[in-house]
Amino acid sequence: MTRLDQIGEDRLVARLTARLPRHPQLRVGPGDDCAVLGNAADRRWSLLKTDAVVEGVHFTKETDLRRVGWKALARAVSDIAAMGGIPEHALITVALPPSMAVAEVEALYAGLTRCAEAFGISIAGGETTRSPAQHGGPGPLFVSITLTGSVEASRCILRSGGRPGDLLLVTGTLGGSLAGKHLDFHPRLAEARWLTRHFRLRAMMDLSDGLASDLPRLAAASRCGYEITAPLPTLPGTSQEAAWQDGEDFELLFALAPGEARRLLKTWPFASLALTEIGRLTPPPSPTHGRDDRPLLHGFDPFSPP
Amino acid sequence: MTRLDQIGEDRLVARLTARLPRHPQLRVGPGDDCAVLGNAADRRWSLLKTDAVVEGVHFTKETDLRRVGWKALARAVSDIAAMGGIPEHALITVALPPSMAVAEVEALYAGLTRCAEAFGISIAGGETTRSPAQHGGPGPLFVSITLTGSVEASRCILRSGGRPGDLLLVTGTLGGSLAGKHLDFHPRLAEARWLTRHFRLRAMMDLSDGLASDLPRLAAASRCGYEITAPLPTLPGTSQEAAWQDGEDFELLFALAPGEARRLLKTWPFASLALTEIGRLTPPPSPTHGRDDRPLLHGFDPFSPP
Repeated sequence: MTRLDQIGEDRLVARLTARLPRHPQLRVGPGDDCAVLGNAADRRWSLLKTDAVVEGVHFTKETDLRRVGWKALARAVSDIAAMGGIPEHALITVALPPSMAVAEVEALYAGLTRCAEAFGISIAGGETTRSPAQHGGPGPLFVSITLTGSVEASRCILRSGGRPGDLLLVTGTLGGSLAGKHLDFHPRLAEARWLTRHFRLRAMMDLSDGLASDLPRLAAASRCGYEITAPLPTLPGTSQEAAWQDGEDFELLFALAPGEARRLLKTWPFASLALTEIGRLTPPPSPTHGRDDRPLLHGFDPFSPP
Repeated sequence: MTRLDQIGEDRLVARLTARLPRHPQLRVGPGDDCAVLGNAADRRWSLLKTDAVVEGVHFTKETDLRRVGWKALARAVSDIAAMGGIPEHALITVALPPSMAVAEVEALYAGLTRCAEAFGISIAGGETTRSPAQHGGPGPLFVSITLTGSVEASRCILRSGGRPGDLLLVTGTLGGSLAGKHLDFHPRLAEARWLTRHFRLRAMMDLSDGLASDLPRLAAASRCGYEITAPLPTLPGTSQEAAWQDGEDFELLFALAPGEARRLLKTWPFASLALTEIGRLTPPPSPTHGRDDRPLLHGFDPFSPP
């Protein structure tokens, strides 16, 4: 009997999604930051994203629930941004221990509402249910978010459009998120919209599980390999290793042709946010050589022992 | 410090939704079976629904996970049906204990897929995360579903359109769902579509928490009172009290003018499914008289002690 902690998230998702019913309007299904819905001739496509944060995984019992609310919705905003899109309507599903104080639930919703207002999102509905007592103690708080959005068809950026030779850039600094940034990060929505308005991005995603997990996903979706050619931009006091694997950076990782990248690096207008060339996409590695020779480090996997 | 189990779900939701940011396109927000999005001039509106089932609340550790998968998605289909709509795309978010067998997760997805195929739904995406160990044992399984849909503006039926004098009808039989029906029920999608094509329904909802909880919600949304004028249709071997308060019936409750109701009862084509007139909407009760004098029984509330 194979257990989840023996195969990890990526292989689980590959098994679960192999035989799902697909709709002709589903342009991009499981495997990108969001699902994309629409017809080829449409000028605008719809985006759908679902995500969840769980007590004991993404935050602790001691975390201010205003920050948990912000984080829960901001994670989904980051995914809409990574497609080049604009967020629209959110649905909020919570499982709450009955012993929880009403004021605590209100704090959670205050954080959700603050994030919704910051990014122009309406809260369209939700569901409240119980997290049952487990083994003699209260159950964990569970917050699941669905966020809809839309994007001009011409500005919708997938993970799969990268080509060998494209340069890889990241916004901001990586690593050390657990010290606080993972609760207060600002999704790069304005930056992604500016990028897709002015540059031809070939592939983009947001960094949620760490570059060590996420970059191989972008490269694989683009049927490329990759190489890191420069030091990673790190949060002050953070090591290169931490920048590679800590996760929850919620920065943008994207690929574009070298000429476009050079033009971008000269014109980047967000003075307080770093933009760094970190490497490039390569031809796909063969089974026997050409693999990345960095030490084998992995980003966050929810099913792996910490 | 007020706790959730002291105020119950309806009062919690009223407090949480009092100050949410709303979008001009949001025609119906929290408080109906689904959110409704669109402009007044649109011929078709979008529907959004989120729902969740939790181990220890909606099913037990022993429940066949194929049936849990069916139930999780079918509950949301029932809500889309209750608006008169057609389901389209589903997102599936699960929190899983790492010790769970991959084959069990695949069984859950087999049930979800079977339900998706039965109702023409595409599975557009999802999220998998961990349900952490709690107090020395594995965490509970959480399954959260988002379902999109659409409905012709002229056929979108809210809870709020009922008028005093309208007759109240229910499909099927009520009560006793816990013996098995709650896992295998068939959402009344075809029946709701037929109803909205041929009759002018004034208000409709699906019965998820039991008539004792749900009928007062429909009446309140319509600014009416109600009275029960006939025995409730019961599952064989089930009492009137059980039919009133057991919950998880997933039948349709709707209101329409007496003339329409009489015509409907003569032409109902679904021979194997009961259709029963159970009562009527009345003028709103005054604070001092005119209240329903049935014994004070309540349907399911997730935060109340069982």
